[in-house]
Amino acid sequence: MPHALVGRLVEVLGVSRVSVDPEVCRQFGQDGTRQSHAADVVVFPDATAQVSAIARICSETRTPMVARGAGTGYSGGAVPVRGGVVLAFERMNRIIAIDEASLYAIVEPGVVTGDLQDAVAGVGLFYPPDPSSLRQCTIGGNVAENAGGPRAFKYGVTRHYVLGLEAVLPSGEVIRTGGKTVKNVVGYDLTQLLVGSEGTLAIVTEITLRLVSLPPAVVTLRAFFPTIHHAAEAVSRLVRQHAVPATLELVDGATLDAVAKATGDRTLAPAGAGAMLIVECDGLPQAVDAEAAIVAAACRAEGATGVVEARTEAERDELWRARRTISPALMVIAGLKINNDIVVPRALVPDLFALVDDLKRRFRLPIPSFGHAGDGNIHVNVMANPDDADQVARAYAAVEALLDGVLALGGSISGEHGIGLSKAAFIDRELSVDTLAAMRRLKQSFDPMGILNPGKIFPEFAPAPVERAVIAERRS
Amino acid sequence: MPHALVGRLVEVLGVSRVSVDPEVCRQFGQDGTRQSHAADVVVFPDATAQVSAIARICSETRTPMVARGAGTGYSGGAVPVRGGVVLAFERMNRIIAIDEASLYAIVEPGVVTGDLQDAVAGVGLFYPPDPSSLRQCTIGGNVAENAGGPRAFKYGVTRHYVLGLEAVLPSGEVIRTGGKTVKNVVGYDLTQLLVGSEGTLAIVTEITLRLVSLPPAVVTLRAFFPTIHHAAEAVSRLVRQHAVPATLELVDGATLDAVAKATGDRTLAPAGAGAMLIVECDGLPQAVDAEAAIVAAACRAEGATGVVEARTEAERDELWRARRTISPALMVIAGLKINNDIVVPRALVPDLFALVDDLKRRFRLPIPSFGHAGDGNIHVNVMANPDDADQVARAYAAVEALLDGVLALGGSISGEHGIGLSKAAFIDRELSVDTLAAMRRLKQSFDPMGILNPGKIFPEFAPAPVERAVIAERRS
Repeated sequence: MPHALVGRLVEVLGVSRVSVDPEVCRQFGQDGTRQSHAADVVVFPDATAQVSAIARICSETRTPMVARGAGTGYSGGAVPVRGGVVLAFERMNRIIAIDEASLYAIVEPGVVTGDLQDAVAGVGLFYPPDPSSLRQCTIGGNVAENAGGPRAFKYGVTRHYVLGLEAVLPSGEVIRTGGKTVKNVVGYDLTQLLVGSEGTLAIVTEITLRLVSLPPAVVTLRAFFPTIHHAAEAVSRLVRQHAVPATLELVDGATLDAVAKATGDRTLAPAGAGAMLIVECDGLPQAVDAEAAIVAAACRAEGATGVVEARTEAERDELWRARRTISPALMVIAGLKINNDIVVPRALVPDLFALVDDLKRRFRLPIPSFGHAGDGNIHVNVMANPDDADQVARAYAAVEALLDGVLALGGSISGEHGIGLSKAAFIDRELSVDTLAAMRRLKQSFDPMGILNPGKIFPEFAPAPVERAVIAERRS
Repeated sequence: MPHALVGRLVEVLGVSRVSVDPEVCRQFGQDGTRQSHAADVVVFPDATAQVSAIARICSETRTPMVARGAGTGYSGGAVPVRGGVVLAFERMNRIIAIDEASLYAIVEPGVVTGDLQDAVAGVGLFYPPDPSSLRQCTIGGNVAENAGGPRAFKYGVTRHYVLGLEAVLPSGEVIRTGGKTVKNVVGYDLTQLLVGSEGTLAIVTEITLRLVSLPPAVVTLRAFFPTIHHAAEAVSRLVRQHAVPATLELVDGATLDAVAKATGDRTLAPAGAGAMLIVECDGLPQAVDAEAAIVAAACRAEGATGVVEARTEAERDELWRARRTISPALMVIAGLKINNDIVVPRALVPDLFALVDDLKRRFRLPIPSFGHAGDGNIHVNVMANPDDADQVARAYAAVEALLDGVLALGGSISGEHGIGLSKAAFIDRELSVDTLAAMRRLKQSFDPMGILNPGKIFPEFAPAPVERAVIAERRS
């Protein structure tokens, strides 16, 4: 990174918006996977015109530019693997408008997802997407990765709420896509193309989001089942009976055991519980009552025990406690966790768990799994002792077998986290040569010099050895 | 069109799948706008491999290729303005799979939308998008134009149901995008890019659609209001009270009058009725009861009269009768109808109607309007006597003023019908030069030779004089 470039950035942005401090460059070079590569310079724009000016400078000097939200991603998407300029959006965190009557909000990319949810709830509205990092992650990052969350069964994922975008192209040109309405068929849907493009096509600087009515009532149910299969049958049964819960969270017995161990609370994993289901219904009070009755009956009909219903915030918190504790709790099993956010057609969730059981046996590793039963989106966590080279090798082999098995079930290797660095080595198992080639041409048409978040998505960018590419969290 | 090309098509497809009959070429060269241009040859593929072979031949010979569903579109999208090969998908009309447990269907593009709805309803499932031509139009056409319909307020539009596609590129390469799950973040979302691309990027040969639970109960309410403003206030009030109806259809007084005149039934336009609202609530019976009560109370609180609730199929049909009769009924007003499917932010529907009132006065023309109040998507019909040159000129001037006014309200020039030929002259009023340039580069990356549905979307393709570009239906 030549001094001249830093000089030009300072000239355009002012010294307070540019940092070459090695600690800052290191800190803004990592994400939730703990993969990391230091930025050469971190900039803190607070307006679209500044982002455009940065792009022009980077374009002229062919410098990589990587947009960054809160760095909570699980695919290495925000890691500047080729160095260059990291654009930190923490100063572009304004909620520009909440239109209560027309049901949309306009926000800057640095707005924290949970803050937006609180702000719109204050006027009786609801922004449903709820990635589990919602207290830290930002809307900009959610848009880049098309973040999901538990509420997707009823409400869909981030892309279903993005109506329009302002974005800066690598040339510095500013485009506006979509608008403020759900219906809009004017030209190609660049909005939907940019959502989930992981910052490789353009840098989003403003987002218009659809809002919906805040459901006035919420009921949460929890049930334990002897096996995953029983829980899956309960889900199928309640869906057949026309219940449409917001959330259908499934947790397997191995995960429950880990949570009970980590928290010292055996009630979270009662004897004989091979699976737990948390179901949340929301809507008008009468609707929620009717739906909760269907859910409870369906669970009992499939052998559920310990069916509990929560109607107050405190009671609901108690039911969600086990689910929320999972991520840290799993580290009691082993120090290395490889989290795969795979997805299968909804009805094949039992087949997926059968596959996981087979992998446990073949690779002699714990693989606690949990996730969103309504979407078929399950987090399959391959655990190993990081100091045991043989276990680590078996873990990575298990991941490869898992992804192949998921594709054989008609599923997908990533439902929520994105490809980034972490799954780049595997993308060509899911997508054909011709499909990937079409994506490469599309990338080329937006970013002919390849300066936007280089080194992501495509298999040629997969770090060698392949194993490094897999999402892994180590106990710190 | 050289004989050699027809010969090669016959060689690949067999003689029964190729027609150069002038009547067939004429018939397959028009759409719902009654714009028309004869195809040079019409082909009737019945498999993806055949579409791929056609593409290779067209690509080698630089022949335009235009995919066609039922030809019910309202933007000239299926009209082969540069001649060439029209691909009629009527033989690719198989419902390949309905997966009741995983909630998806796989269909060929020629499946009629209403047929799919019937088929999935037979197993308790629901495919919500409901363009008004649903008994004729096809899923392939719906995907090409991202068709909407009345149910969008609760359920969204076609794109919200498309999970995956198989598509043929102009080179003949076959790509697969997306999959069978709602969550999928593997590479760029080519699925969402192709939806609404009007057959200009690829030719869709198979579609995987998300299905939802068939709501077991439906209640329809109708209410008359003194003015549009009162009806709009009722909509805002019921939304604030957390009702989420499937449908919120608004019909203005001028339209009601035309319907009453055309049908000879004055009950469809009672004295003093400046607007009618049809609201449909669906879901579990208890939920529908609660929601219908909110809707009825909100209507009455805003001065509604004649509030009627229908619970049986026959009663509901009766309430929908006025709405269904609108399109033919408007022709009693005048012989030329220019239908604009504009959209404004939901709360600005009264402002839109104020704009329409102003246009009526300024251009001295009837402009009956109706549409989807929940989405802000209103069909504004500028009417003129086609034999009166002055009226026709005023009509086209009124359309231009309408579109500019809609954009000034933060709306969009097309909510459902697409750009095609009909709005190509106006697209650059909504999209900036840089945004359009990005779309052109994208088109180039998919179709470098420009053989896929040439002459559509971009302003340089707008037929001269501009007036021809506007959607117009003439009384036949």
